[in-house]
Amino acid sequence: MFLIPFSQEEKKKLGTMKLFFFLFVGAVHLLSLGSGKATNKNGTSQRTFQEIKEEIASYEEVAKAIINLAVYGKYQNRSYERLGLLVDTVGPRLSGSKNLEKAIQIMYQNLQQDGLEDVHLEPVRIPHWERGEESAVMLQPRIHKMAILGLGTSIGTPPGGITAEVLVVTSFDELQRRASEARGKIVVYNQPYTGYKTTVQYRMQGAVEAAKVGAVASLIRSVASFSIYSPHTGFQEYQDDVPKIPTACITVEDAEMISRMASRGDTVIIHLEMGAKTYPDTDSFNTVAEITGSKYPDQVVLVSGHLDSWDVGQGAMDDGVGAFISWEALSLVKDLGLRPKRTLRLVLWAAEEQGGIGASQYYELHKANASRYSLVMESDSGTFLPSGIQFTGSDKARAIMKEIMSLLQPLNVTKVFSGGEGTDINFWIQAGVPGASLCDDDLYRYFFFHHSYGDTMTAIDPKQMNVAAAVWAVVSYVVADIEEMLPRSEGE
Amino acid sequence: MFLIPFSQEEKKKLGTMKLFFFLFVGAVHLLSLGSGKATNKNGTSQRTFQEIKEEIASYEEVAKAIINLAVYGKYQNRSYERLGLLVDTVGPRLSGSKNLEKAIQIMYQNLQQDGLEDVHLEPVRIPHWERGEESAVMLQPRIHKMAILGLGTSIGTPPGGITAEVLVVTSFDELQRRASEARGKIVVYNQPYTGYKTTVQYRMQGAVEAAKVGAVASLIRSVASFSIYSPHTGFQEYQDDVPKIPTACITVEDAEMISRMASRGDTVIIHLEMGAKTYPDTDSFNTVAEITGSKYPDQVVLVSGHLDSWDVGQGAMDDGVGAFISWEALSLVKDLGLRPKRTLRLVLWAAEEQGGIGASQYYELHKANASRYSLVMESDSGTFLPSGIQFTGSDKARAIMKEIMSLLQPLNVTKVFSGGEGTDINFWIQAGVPGASLCDDDLYRYFFFHHSYGDTMTAIDPKQMNVAAAVWAVVSYVVADIEEMLPRSEGE
Repeated sequence: MFLIPFSQEEKKKLGTMKLFFFLFVGAVHLLSLGSGKATNKNGTSQRTFQEIKEEIASYEEVAKAIINLAVYGKYQNRSYERLGLLVDTVGPRLSGSKNLEKAIQIMYQNLQQDGLEDVHLEPVRIPHWERGEESAVMLQPRIHKMAILGLGTSIGTPPGGITAEVLVVTSFDELQRRASEARGKIVVYNQPYTGYKTTVQYRMQGAVEAAKVGAVASLIRSVASFSIYSPHTGFQEYQDDVPKIPTACITVEDAEMISRMASRGDTVIIHLEMGAKTYPDTDSFNTVAEITGSKYPDQVVLVSGHLDSWDVGQGAMDDGVGAFISWEALSLVKDLGLRPKRTLRLVLWAAEEQGGIGASQYYELHKANASRYSLVMESDSGTFLPSGIQFTGSDKARAIMKEIMSLLQPLNVTKVFSGGEGTDINFWIQAGVPGASLCDDDLYRYFFFHHSYGDTMTAIDPKQMNVAAAVWAVVSYVVADIEEMLPRSEGE
Repeated sequence: MFLIPFSQEEKKKLGTMKLFFFLFVGAVHLLSLGSGKATNKNGTSQRTFQEIKEEIASYEEVAKAIINLAVYGKYQNRSYERLGLLVDTVGPRLSGSKNLEKAIQIMYQNLQQDGLEDVHLEPVRIPHWERGEESAVMLQPRIHKMAILGLGTSIGTPPGGITAEVLVVTSFDELQRRASEARGKIVVYNQPYTGYKTTVQYRMQGAVEAAKVGAVASLIRSVASFSIYSPHTGFQEYQDDVPKIPTACITVEDAEMISRMASRGDTVIIHLEMGAKTYPDTDSFNTVAEITGSKYPDQVVLVSGHLDSWDVGQGAMDDGVGAFISWEALSLVKDLGLRPKRTLRLVLWAAEEQGGIGASQYYELHKANASRYSLVMESDSGTFLPSGIQFTGSDKARAIMKEIMSLLQPLNVTKVFSGGEGTDINFWIQAGVPGASLCDDDLYRYFFFHHSYGDTMTAIDPKQMNVAAAVWAVVSYVVADIEEMLPRSEGE
């Protein structure tokens, strides 16, 4: 779908641009063919693995060209510069906000100006929550203004706020054991950080569990691997049959202090005010661009990141870098005049942070075509220096991915790990489509910044972004260009 | 001087406590002497180095006892627990604030209850500056609420604040080159962090240099080695002949963003409001306690840290840990029933952050006695895992310190580096008194938290604090107990 129609003049311009573009691509492609790179094999789907291996090996020069252009050549730091311009201009991009819509419009222009094909916006309905004004002050045992960030979907407090004594617990188990103490209190969770997946349950379900035992609000220790008094927001979920209570994250520092105070027998009293409110869902878009496949245009390799973010910081790391290395992958392929046999499609998701809302609607719209998606890729864990990719797919597909990753030997990023799921591509993976994500060795560092005011360009290293973009481009291009789709578990 | 007189009842209690204390100390000391530890040598001051070396070696068992008590035994984590209680109870302790006075009174009680001797408060006059309400909002190129912290001694803005275009520079040199652009603007310094000593000049003199070229305010990139959108405050200095302009620190993230915006040609406009105000100097105290020397009570080994802090965070690292390992050094010596020949004196300084104000007045009061100070010690760079001490003194004294540090072999903290200066002991060092400070290998980490909301107990590792306290106790006790004072450069 192409939602923003061109003016006549724009169409003319685009026509001229496209003509030059295809001439250029055609010329480079011919050169490429002439030099024996990326040549098509016989096209049968019953080739031996040795034949596939040889085909992949034939991409060595193409991979080197991508790496050189991205990491050492003319376009090093381009994705970093592009990202900086967007996030400095727009700031954070919360689902339902004007900032997100502004970012989508800018990206639409950017992708067109970059010369990508079939640039279009696919409409989605997304949540619209706003935190409003919020504050928390410890009143006892001493006055202390606390940094907080309301959690996405939280209700606000009644006018005038909530003043209540605190019950501090370090786990859901402790909350259950001390359930009789919770009524009328603000439950403070001081759970230790044991890794994101295990710890985030306190942010997700802390309010519901506290409400079940009669608490009037819950404050959750930020799910962060390290803190300089930084609150880290995020999504949380109410349950229909449990009263909704206001919920916010507090800093690791304050959670630990409150815990120490309680352990000394101090009564801790907090006054909490939150103006958070959920508004009706709003119209938005997934942003899509392509390099249309030369031989199998209906077959797709999808690369993606999400354009929305939380409403603090700049959303540079989560997930600006993911979105922009995905764009960069297409740019690099295009700039080298390459056109894969399959369509290489970029999708910048809307409202990932609200639970993959944009991606879910994209899946609904396109799932009939699932059998023609060779690979879905998402980068949404920052782009520090990757050591490889995470991959979910059949053993045969994994073996092929390993061959493809060997093309990245010049960057020493050759590993294929298991995993590869991501909020925005899981729908496809569950439907049997192979999925890949960038494997970051520095997730510990990622959770320094995640969902905090610290998620800014300062957290991004342009050199690491160059490497990540090169990996992303090589993998997506080669999967899109090899003769066969990645084999499914069912033997497709 | 003993400034807070006891009631009759308190005197009686103290008398009884002291009696038990001395009996206990006496008993343990006899045991210690009986076992041949810490024995006195012949007392002449012309001993050979070999004799001194042997004397120091005789402290091996005492050092082990201190280490065992502090690191593995009954009192491990005591200094951490004590510090947590104070800073959780009082919070930050800005010069001139009620919090600082509360902390001083609590420490006075603490030191008495600990059974230290001659616990007293020495009056000082200290600065009283308050930041008041403050805010900064970028108005162009986009609305962005910025985290700021006014710098100590800064004036406030006029009512209604200052709205001005930004001139961003990365160095004083660039400011000079672009002096003609500065008039009427807010100068933003985006100086890179090249280490504290080299970078802090921008915080100290940024306002003066900006005012000289006609700026109306200055915003300084926080002097921090790492940031999660954390502003880091600190002291700055006006000059009498230069107009005073409001000055605050901003985050590394915002400084870098403003710099990027300016480099793209964007006009950056900021609205700054600061309610900062300097009030008349106020009465306060240096807090003092001792273990009085058995043989040369007029000779002193001074251990110290400062009790004041900035007004954000908890002042746990700067300099709660320094103050509390210094207290712990005396506690450990006392708890082992040791009494050195010289007086071991603890001083908790007031108003270090305003330029060593309390320490300066202590020096004025006591400098006539400088020839009887064997060593002045200050810990004010955090207490991560130390690798040794920094020392300033004569070559002979350094050789003695090296022998003493060899007693810390069980902790592998044996190095003697050069340096050892500190705001609060420099007066003495300049007068020729040997000086020592704890050598932290992790100053890079120190400046994550320094002068920010992140300076809390969360930044403190109790195990590292145990080690630091043991080092502090062994060094101070042995220097106080060996037969001779540390030799001065002049051959004293």
